[in-house]
Amino acid sequence: MPTPRPDFHRFKAVVSYDGTNYAGYQIQPDQPTIQASLEQALTQLTGVQSRVFASGRTDQGVHARGQVIHVDLPRPRDLKRLQIGLNAVLPPDIRIESIRKVKPDFDARFSAQWKEYRYFIWNAPVLTPDVRRFKTHIHRRLDPEVMRQAAATLCGTHDFASFSANPQREVDGTVRTLFALRVKKRGPDVSIEAVGNGFLYKMVRSLAGFLIRVGSGERSADDAKRILDACQRTAEVPTAPPSGLFLWRVSYHPHTESQL
Amino acid sequence: MPTPRPDFHRFKAVVSYDGTNYAGYQIQPDQPTIQASLEQALTQLTGVQSRVFASGRTDQGVHARGQVIHVDLPRPRDLKRLQIGLNAVLPPDIRIESIRKVKPDFDARFSAQWKEYRYFIWNAPVLTPDVRRFKTHIHRRLDPEVMRQAAATLCGTHDFASFSANPQREVDGTVRTLFALRVKKRGPDVSIEAVGNGFLYKMVRSLAGFLIRVGSGERSADDAKRILDACQRTAEVPTAPPSGLFLWRVSYHPHTESQL
Repeated sequence: MPTPRPDFHRFKAVVSYDGTNYAGYQIQPDQPTIQASLEQALTQLTGVQSRVFASGRTDQGVHARGQVIHVDLPRPRDLKRLQIGLNAVLPPDIRIESIRKVKPDFDARFSAQWKEYRYFIWNAPVLTPDVRRFKTHIHRRLDPEVMRQAAATLCGTHDFASFSANPQREVDGTVRTLFALRVKKRGPDVSIEAVGNGFLYKMVRSLAGFLIRVGSGERSADDAKRILDACQRTAEVPTAPPSGLFLWRVSYHPHTESQL
Repeated sequence: MPTPRPDFHRFKAVVSYDGTNYAGYQIQPDQPTIQASLEQALTQLTGVQSRVFASGRTDQGVHARGQVIHVDLPRPRDLKRLQIGLNAVLPPDIRIESIRKVKPDFDARFSAQWKEYRYFIWNAPVLTPDVRRFKTHIHRRLDPEVMRQAAATLCGTHDFASFSANPQREVDGTVRTLFALRVKKRGPDVSIEAVGNGFLYKMVRSLAGFLIRVGSGERSADDAKRILDACQRTAEVPTAPPSGLFLWRVSYHPHTESQL
């Protein structure tokens, strides 16, 4: 975390995006990314090179309803005007939902208390066109009850190495706490809501991939405990496609984001 | 309605589509249309030129969850295979949701008893990217209560000339019956559900356009009766954009669609 410059103020923004056409959140050479689009729009509006810090990366094709970023900008501004200006220059698949001034020690990543992801599934024989960009199509009928049983086992504090796409890469170990892992079904819509204090690499898509297998009868709810205990990723846990995943919300302690 | 050929059987299909990239349902020269895509797919699969008849046209940019078509095809087929084959050759923004054999006098248009349209609105300051293709953005806060009051006046049997984009064009007059006109609100989502025995040209988008004005306070619920009684289209009734509109369902008497 760079020390904020004294003549700069820190701002927090909630950002939503349709990740379909992006190579992910993080800047990469010669690829469209969310971060590059945000920094370019900020530079265009403020005239200064701005570096944007997010609560975390999202992978290629993953969407957001409530990604949070922080950025340091010179002098206080008319924030409503800044928001409208940013949304005018950003492409329509990225939106600034809100922006506010925060304390200089607010950090989108390190001040976060918990995050919520939602994974959306269209569970019907045919993939209806209007849902195809944001829901994963599963034509086998899912049983939400057995998915909930497996989810109850996965909820809580565990070593989630079996649900990381790359456990060796995790610098903070592989123990995380899931405060909630809900499975909702309404007609053909099935959603998985995961709330936790942190998530390993591709953890939500791994949880979704496993819960889909349980729901379709390929695995039993009892397999959840055995797979957790193994602390090793195997082919039993597939990674569900990115297009069904949304970073839904990032929550902070009210103190850290109080306006100055 | 052409007389079915004796060696042909009649089939009813429920079709969904994302109308964003189409010039509407009906075939037009040198334009992508839903009808042309369906007829081309049927010809490709069956080897015969097929003409498709829909419950009604939808305009450019309007979507469907439950458009109904009928088509005459040679000899009974494995319908599941035909459906899968059609969905394999159709673009992903058009899907055959179901297909079944019906009596030869079933007619997608003339056998229909009622239709339901749904109009979707995103009522929030910012248009969140994942809803932008299928919901109309209204940033002024809508009051669903006054919209419901106006809707209650519009419900029932009336001369809807004031809510047709072209009353002169209507060959069957301008009296129609709305069995239901519901306004639902849940967070930023507002939807208008219109169920009726028939709809005039752009009638649902006109009803939606007027209800949006009422909800945002530009018109009062009491204006509904005055505008209905005038039986004349004026600038007081705007046509809401097509992208929020779905043909949701077409209902038939069980007798007419019984399988042979």
